[in-house]
Amino acid sequence: MDLKSRIERVRNQFIVHDTEAILISSPSNKFYLGNLYSSSGYILITRRSQYLIVDFRYYEEVKNESCIFEPVLMSKENNIYKIINLIILKEGIKRIGFEGQEISYDLYSEFSKLLKCELFSLDLSKIRMIKDADEIENIKAACKIADDAFNHIVGFIKDGISEREVENELVRYIKQRGGEKESFDTIVASGIRGALPHGKASEKTIKSGELITMDFGVRYKNYCSDITRTVALGTCQELLINIYNLVNFAGKEAIKGAKPGVTLGYLDSTAREIIEKGGYGKYFGHNLGHGLGIQVHEYPAVAPNSDEVLIEGMVITIEPGIYLPGVGGVRIEEDILITKGGGVSLTNSSRELITL
Amino acid sequence: MDLKSRIERVRNQFIVHDTEAILISSPSNKFYLGNLYSSSGYILITRRSQYLIVDFRYYEEVKNESCIFEPVLMSKENNIYKIINLIILKEGIKRIGFEGQEISYDLYSEFSKLLKCELFSLDLSKIRMIKDADEIENIKAACKIADDAFNHIVGFIKDGISEREVENELVRYIKQRGGEKESFDTIVASGIRGALPHGKASEKTIKSGELITMDFGVRYKNYCSDITRTVALGTCQELLINIYNLVNFAGKEAIKGAKPGVTLGYLDSTAREIIEKGGYGKYFGHNLGHGLGIQVHEYPAVAPNSDEVLIEGMVITIEPGIYLPGVGGVRIEEDILITKGGGVSLTNSSRELITL
Repeated sequence: MDLKSRIERVRNQFIVHDTEAILISSPSNKFYLGNLYSSSGYILITRRSQYLIVDFRYYEEVKNESCIFEPVLMSKENNIYKIINLIILKEGIKRIGFEGQEISYDLYSEFSKLLKCELFSLDLSKIRMIKDADEIENIKAACKIADDAFNHIVGFIKDGISEREVENELVRYIKQRGGEKESFDTIVASGIRGALPHGKASEKTIKSGELITMDFGVRYKNYCSDITRTVALGTCQELLINIYNLVNFAGKEAIKGAKPGVTLGYLDSTAREIIEKGGYGKYFGHNLGHGLGIQVHEYPAVAPNSDEVLIEGMVITIEPGIYLPGVGGVRIEEDILITKGGGVSLTNSSRELITL
Repeated sequence: MDLKSRIERVRNQFIVHDTEAILISSPSNKFYLGNLYSSSGYILITRRSQYLIVDFRYYEEVKNESCIFEPVLMSKENNIYKIINLIILKEGIKRIGFEGQEISYDLYSEFSKLLKCELFSLDLSKIRMIKDADEIENIKAACKIADDAFNHIVGFIKDGISEREVENELVRYIKQRGGEKESFDTIVASGIRGALPHGKASEKTIKSGELITMDFGVRYKNYCSDITRTVALGTCQELLINIYNLVNFAGKEAIKGAKPGVTLGYLDSTAREIIEKGGYGKYFGHNLGHGLGIQVHEYPAVAPNSDEVLIEGMVITIEPGIYLPGVGGVRIEEDILITKGGGVSLTNSSRELITL
């Protein structure tokens, strides 16, 4: 989909919210709508035009690219308030929507004091919910690198190396394979640290008899993958093997159920009920998954009671887990593209327990 | 300095702002005050106590550490609003300060609707301005790894390799040397891309006759370094050598002038006037530097007209640059500790032009 159609998605909000302009400040939406991936700068979409407002650091790039935006140079003298007030005046704008989840309270206060129009917070998280073909290609490429990295790392893990060394090797491999960077801080949680769902890699050494959970992702052309695998080093206690099999089964059933028309709440319950029936319900304390795209966590959450419905073109994660304090944990995560025929996994590493 | 003294720094704001409680939400301040480096969770400091409010992912860690905080488990049922309202009731709190730069407008709206007390935005950026001995040790260690990485990378750069390959090698080296990660996205800008002050590494290959600006940093124990060097590959045009020497001289003079009692505005002008007199004033479009610590950019900015005064224990960057559109650019950056006797550079790579 071209940028123009994406901008029209934003303009479609004008009627819903009875507004004439929307100010975009989140890096992910600025990239989605205007190829600008930066924490600074703004996009202002009005009925008549669309403005890309950046400081001198980005102005040369923006100006040189032939694009559908009117480039505006922001500086100490010609600040964002002056720029927007001029556009307000020129186009007779009475009301501007802004990304209230993104803009800080202090920045809002300044806007509200200095802009000569009414302001209101609106949520644009749904505009990126359905991925187009180009986006899916990038996510697929990010998933492929993640799969290859997993395949590589199982040959690297051995008794006595630290979680940090595993993380470093993963990141090195990802970059060498053309991933821009990891899409979030890599989690490597071994042994009893596996009970920490967000146990970032530590100096702890990995020992035989432990499960090792690795949750990592790749950023490729500004799109993310996000994969988790738990592997065993040597023989682990039966309890851990049992929870592995339960988590694996719960995940597989959820993937089977990820079809257009199903609510995300129902999808979450598919996996959750299996884990509950297995007796570990209270040890699965997070959502089943989340949307995935330019951000590693984006709308929608695959959460209990969510009424949002799966639609063709969504990409979500499915990542059940069980975390036993003082014992260890298991999580298995796939990235799933919703197609007419059902959920298709974009991550393809083996889900069966690998014993190293 | 221990956490208790840091918390007292926050309590010192109670009188200034006529308040009885301050809510901390920024990851950097949560780490500074409570060793919690996470985007989720809160610290609430009241007259009587201090609360570390986290969800189940962090609760085990927080609870197990013997610490000076009262740990509170936050969940869907026992959400942040309920938790704070209970403390408001228990302690008779009428007014809570929050980090308005950090909290989103939407979250503020929820707080303002649901909390049973008055709210106001306050700025805590100054509490971390003066670094204690432990902090300086960590910044020094982060600078040492950055210096070593620069020393390593000059042996790696050659005709025909891409900026991305330089970035990947820098990051690989940093992690291998014990840096947790890069402290921001590494900038590698060669040839005419050197005119982009924030030119992140691209697929462009580096060619003989070009200057290459590398701006990178290391995160070590959650403290940052930030260094920039510009090197030459082969013989460069004289214009580039001239601006290199001008930038180098401007930076050296500023470092000499970085003494306790000097205003940051004056320090900025020291370098800026040299570049202006050289005829390149309008090609130095950014501040001279910024504070450095848990965040790679933190208070104070070394900016024109700043009245803030240098104090012993501050750590700032000094990073003049000249950027000539269509030609190239130069920036040289050091991390400077302010001591009684003047500025001491924590980065120690050669400032003289290295020709590869």
